[in-house]
Amino acid sequence: MIQIYDTTLRDGSQRTDISFSVDDKLNIARRLDDLGVAFIEGGWPGSNPKDAEFFRRAAKMEWRHAKIVAFGMTCAAEKRAHEDENIRALLDAQTPYCAVVGKSSLLHVHEVIRTTPQNNLRMIEESVAYLVQNGRKVIYDAEHFFDGYKEDANYALQTLEAALRGGAETLVLCDTNGGTLPWEVGEIVRTVRKHFPAAQLGIHAHNDSECAVANSLVAVREGCIQVQGTINGYGERCGNANLCSIIPDLELKMGLKALPEGHLAKLTELSHYVAEVANLAPDEHLPYVGRAAFAHKGGIHVAAMRRTSRSYQHIDPELVGNRSRVVVSELSGRGNLLSKAEEYGLNLDEQFDVSSALKDLKGLEAQGFSFEAAEASVVMMLRRRQPDYQPPFELIDFTASVEHRQGRGMIAEATVKVRVNGEVIHTAADGNGPVNALDRALRKALRPFYPEIDHFHLKDYKVRILDGNHGTMATTRVLIDTSNGVSQWSTVGASTNIIEASWLALADSVEYGLWELSRRKTHEG
Amino acid sequence: MIQIYDTTLRDGSQRTDISFSVDDKLNIARRLDDLGVAFIEGGWPGSNPKDAEFFRRAAKMEWRHAKIVAFGMTCAAEKRAHEDENIRALLDAQTPYCAVVGKSSLLHVHEVIRTTPQNNLRMIEESVAYLVQNGRKVIYDAEHFFDGYKEDANYALQTLEAALRGGAETLVLCDTNGGTLPWEVGEIVRTVRKHFPAAQLGIHAHNDSECAVANSLVAVREGCIQVQGTINGYGERCGNANLCSIIPDLELKMGLKALPEGHLAKLTELSHYVAEVANLAPDEHLPYVGRAAFAHKGGIHVAAMRRTSRSYQHIDPELVGNRSRVVVSELSGRGNLLSKAEEYGLNLDEQFDVSSALKDLKGLEAQGFSFEAAEASVVMMLRRRQPDYQPPFELIDFTASVEHRQGRGMIAEATVKVRVNGEVIHTAADGNGPVNALDRALRKALRPFYPEIDHFHLKDYKVRILDGNHGTMATTRVLIDTSNGVSQWSTVGASTNIIEASWLALADSVEYGLWELSRRKTHEG
Repeated sequence: MIQIYDTTLRDGSQRTDISFSVDDKLNIARRLDDLGVAFIEGGWPGSNPKDAEFFRRAAKMEWRHAKIVAFGMTCAAEKRAHEDENIRALLDAQTPYCAVVGKSSLLHVHEVIRTTPQNNLRMIEESVAYLVQNGRKVIYDAEHFFDGYKEDANYALQTLEAALRGGAETLVLCDTNGGTLPWEVGEIVRTVRKHFPAAQLGIHAHNDSECAVANSLVAVREGCIQVQGTINGYGERCGNANLCSIIPDLELKMGLKALPEGHLAKLTELSHYVAEVANLAPDEHLPYVGRAAFAHKGGIHVAAMRRTSRSYQHIDPELVGNRSRVVVSELSGRGNLLSKAEEYGLNLDEQFDVSSALKDLKGLEAQGFSFEAAEASVVMMLRRRQPDYQPPFELIDFTASVEHRQGRGMIAEATVKVRVNGEVIHTAADGNGPVNALDRALRKALRPFYPEIDHFHLKDYKVRILDGNHGTMATTRVLIDTSNGVSQWSTVGASTNIIEASWLALADSVEYGLWELSRRKTHEG
Repeated sequence: MIQIYDTTLRDGSQRTDISFSVDDKLNIARRLDDLGVAFIEGGWPGSNPKDAEFFRRAAKMEWRHAKIVAFGMTCAAEKRAHEDENIRALLDAQTPYCAVVGKSSLLHVHEVIRTTPQNNLRMIEESVAYLVQNGRKVIYDAEHFFDGYKEDANYALQTLEAALRGGAETLVLCDTNGGTLPWEVGEIVRTVRKHFPAAQLGIHAHNDSECAVANSLVAVREGCIQVQGTINGYGERCGNANLCSIIPDLELKMGLKALPEGHLAKLTELSHYVAEVANLAPDEHLPYVGRAAFAHKGGIHVAAMRRTSRSYQHIDPELVGNRSRVVVSELSGRGNLLSKAEEYGLNLDEQFDVSSALKDLKGLEAQGFSFEAAEASVVMMLRRRQPDYQPPFELIDFTASVEHRQGRGMIAEATVKVRVNGEVIHTAADGNGPVNALDRALRKALRPFYPEIDHFHLKDYKVRILDGNHGTMATTRVLIDTSNGVSQWSTVGASTNIIEASWLALADSVEYGLWELSRRKTHEG
């Protein structure tokens, strides 16, 4: 069993655009435990009060699979371990494991911490030993190990020896700057193994040469039993080694166990969950877990996939909780559109004019719509062309206005006039912005007819300017993700007017939601 | 010299969200040639009229470094090469080189193209030979080579032999499904080299196991002299091997030449250019070329970097045309803010209260602003706190309204009341959206005083909902990139009201642009 050591909450949060609250961290830790990783590095209690609070609260929780780890540095050059506040903070975190990072590179010893090589060895051994004497298991992170080894192999090995003398359980070789290539990692891990045949080794890689995953896998092949990394590869600069690729590579390609049996299928959901909490758009192109990881666009690939799914997929996407997708786009053929209709439970009869629907879709794409990420809008477009289609509401008018008057703050107001079942409803609402005001006015108009819309919640709202060189006159594309608590759907609108684009996406979203509910009722009824 | 073979325009454009026009393709090809790649695969002339037009126009242009390559399949199973339209389209493309892809895997021979292994060999040899007889040099792409080799090594080698018999100049081993791991690539390339010691070999990797870069590098170590890939790793599913990482890995880490002397420093700009043409936000975390590739956020890293820049950088960023960045964020200290002021030529005197500015900045971040990507807003915030600050204009009021009335289309109108040099100007404008109307009304008000604003162009306008679970009431962050043709700057606004957030970013953008111009005039004068 390979030990998966997650450092999303510590090293991952060093990414430029990530900032987790304590609740965020605890929620992510809970999900990591549920996935079944061996270690969760929660933070650096000596560096900020947020992380100290995390450990206070984590200590009261139950963890099924993972050990919680507090991270810190060796004691300062001029201090003894027991006097160092950073080391004390590690003990205060009350975790079963501590990770202690120390210097392996003489460049860093001389120029960054500015001490003697000998004192650095003292700092490593003493810091590890003090924690071990206080009942902690210690994972020793050898910072810049590969760079340090290339500068002075002998000294780099001495630092590991110091950590072992202190009582470290595992020695983790860190490629802190991410500059090492796979064969160098392989060779250096092999040498370290020869020097310390009894020691447990780990690998901690960064992606600055775009080799972090390969480096981690090579290190495992050479005998490392622990892999440190982050969900989605988040981390400073170019990121840490991506556990969402490493775990399936280990399990599906190398035949090693890294998670409890059956847990691999939770990976895709976890990846998206962490992206959501980090408030980052999930990277659609991530291996294994990305929305496009098993997406097929080209006509020839789609045709081949229909013949044999292995033809353009390296694994069965369900193993990691993902699925194949056929993408609907301007490159689509009839097949793509028909598969999409089937997928959403829309029965198109034989009279249905697929070619004309496809032509309209391509026309809208030329105007700036993009249906790849807005399948509910595709479904509505098809649905509206069916002979039995009855719109749940028809828009007559809308207005939206925003005022900023000295001393009165911002005011946003909207009016909506719609026809529902032959009745004309005219409503007005204010909001904290024009789209919110429109949303509220529309809901106000529809609620008496469709009370279920109170369960529709906007999950995300994305805006993209398509032709930025046209300045504020550019076409705007709005994508809206809506959830009713059970399922989630995405719709699109495009216009040079951001309010109109938002309205189009909003109207599709409400209409799709109502249709899906009525369809489900029919099925259940 | 390693041959860099770029397929951004063909395989790269298979990415789900990319669609290039013919002009886009020619512009990118021009820039790739300028970078100095050896080959540019322009498209698949047999598959669509756009690509055929690309080759018609490319044939009339001059190329300094690169050979243009037309891509196509071997002839169909039931046809002779000279009868196949796809092969004819390759000849019609009038390129010096053709790339021909054929099947190496028996699974594909039996289940996808549904022919005999023998006929597949015939198709390969005959297609290559026909093109060679017609004066083309041929690069043979062995599709699914690694998978095919693992199924039946002997047959996979026979397909290469067929291509060699046909007269192929280079045999490219493709990991089409991206499922192969680095040591498998190494071993298989080594075996192929033994079988065909005189043949030129290439590698074409996909990133489905997140090993595409490592696989390409390992293949080069084992003797491949051509690397196929795309700019930014764009490509179907998880992308192709990323040339923006491979090229610097080859040149800076492996000591091999891949580009003409001195051209490596053009890489970052090219990466951003291709992202822009592809209409994708550049991935900030890309190795080497990402905006965050050399960004330092944590206080300790920033401190160490000040002592020695090698401490947390694997290479000098200028070698690839990138630069180090110190990130200003809630984790910043005084140092980060001071470095930023220096960088933008803002002289803060000794009385300047950095702590209070930092506190305000953190307060705004808590409200939803994000200054990491909006440095011009940071500069304006500092500038406004200087005692000699005179605002170029002061906002009194603004309004914006949007109307959609049956039969009259959309109307957007805005009014702006500002004070400039003690004079109150009140203007109104319409626009094709409310932000455009506001932008136009503001420009109308300021133009008589600052005619230079006519040169400010909005380059991008991004909107992000920060707390999507609050629906349309969520806080909205707007980022605006503006250019005056010489320099480019980014500003931010945040509010629950998208119009207000846009206004804030717009006002900062105009004010920064005016300040920068006045500063430059002072320097030049």
